[in-house]
Amino acid sequence: MLKLYFSPQSCALASHIALEEAGADYQAVRVDLANGEQRQSDYLKINPKGRVPALVTDRGILTETPAILFYVAQTHPKVQLAALDDPFEIGRLQAFISYLCSTVHVAHAHRIRGYRWADDEASFADMRRKVPQTVGECFQLIEREMFTGPWVMGERFSIADPYLYTLTTWLESDGIDPSRFPKIADHRQRMSARPAVAKILSAHG
Amino acid sequence: MLKLYFSPQSCALASHIALEEAGADYQAVRVDLANGEQRQSDYLKINPKGRVPALVTDRGILTETPAILFYVAQTHPKVQLAALDDPFEIGRLQAFISYLCSTVHVAHAHRIRGYRWADDEASFADMRRKVPQTVGECFQLIEREMFTGPWVMGERFSIADPYLYTLTTWLESDGIDPSRFPKIADHRQRMSARPAVAKILSAHG
Repeated sequence: MLKLYFSPQSCALASHIALEEAGADYQAVRVDLANGEQRQSDYLKINPKGRVPALVTDRGILTETPAILFYVAQTHPKVQLAALDDPFEIGRLQAFISYLCSTVHVAHAHRIRGYRWADDEASFADMRRKVPQTVGECFQLIEREMFTGPWVMGERFSIADPYLYTLTTWLESDGIDPSRFPKIADHRQRMSARPAVAKILSAHG
Repeated sequence: MLKLYFSPQSCALASHIALEEAGADYQAVRVDLANGEQRQSDYLKINPKGRVPALVTDRGILTETPAILFYVAQTHPKVQLAALDDPFEIGRLQAFISYLCSTVHVAHAHRIRGYRWADDEASFADMRRKVPQTVGECFQLIEREMFTGPWVMGERFSIADPYLYTLTTWLESDGIDPSRFPKIADHRQRMSARPAVAKILSAHG
């Protein structure tokens, strides 16, 4: 059985939803970030980076949202969470997912995790002030250029959908009005209405 | 024929080496970042993000290093640049690549691109000062926990190798002595000695 280490409201939500949508046989284990459980030796044995998510499989442990999402898609091919037989479509999917992890999530993280990249309180405040602009620009680009519709990649629901959804749940706290992005706002609403998503949200609540 | 848009000394080096190692039929087109070519309308039609790399294929354009690397591996299966028939090994590979793009490259970027996440000169200076620490911690983790050897993923050369190599070529300019990381330093030396790498380095020189 798979075991997902997650913490509420973190990007682990994406992997959690993907496992549920895939009908995977898995167990979810909550990591208490507020009390620093992710930096304690027991958890560092699971993920030396001290982050969530981490997925324990019978072959070993996988970390990083893009890797976990694609692993879930590959090991549950019947659910068709990725166009596994089409290298170009996989490329499009991974380009979108990469943008979320390396640009959008990173822009967001400057709101409360400025200490990762600087030391002064004044720098943290400066970073915080810029988040509505930087995250807003990312979502503008997604709305205008990347979102195909009705799902992220087109007609078919994929692992990109729970990941985009996860990041859109942070918009308000980043000081951004989701209604600026009609396609993304509509996507968020349709995602919330999926039974698998509602179930996982209650575990993260 | 594939067409790779790159700029010298950028992370596009990884995709460029991968194409060469794969024996791909491709053409490389230099984008002049110093003169802002990446923000001009002709290039924004290729990549609306205004970044390199971008790979033009007969099906459309792919961006983001992780997506391009995996596409090259998938479309040149005989060269075996990824364990394409093993979802767990692909997961390990993508976890490593994701860490490079979302954590290591991002840490490095705070040395000269602080304007992406803040507005004040003092914040940029603060970020710059922290880069030797943050990038150093990333490479320490790679050296200690992630690098399998002799290649990144183990016995077989993969798309993770040119990507790690690319990021190690930035170590000195980030204020880090590569000899602190013996496995990574040795990997860099062996990478530089590969004919495909030497050829591409001269195009980036």
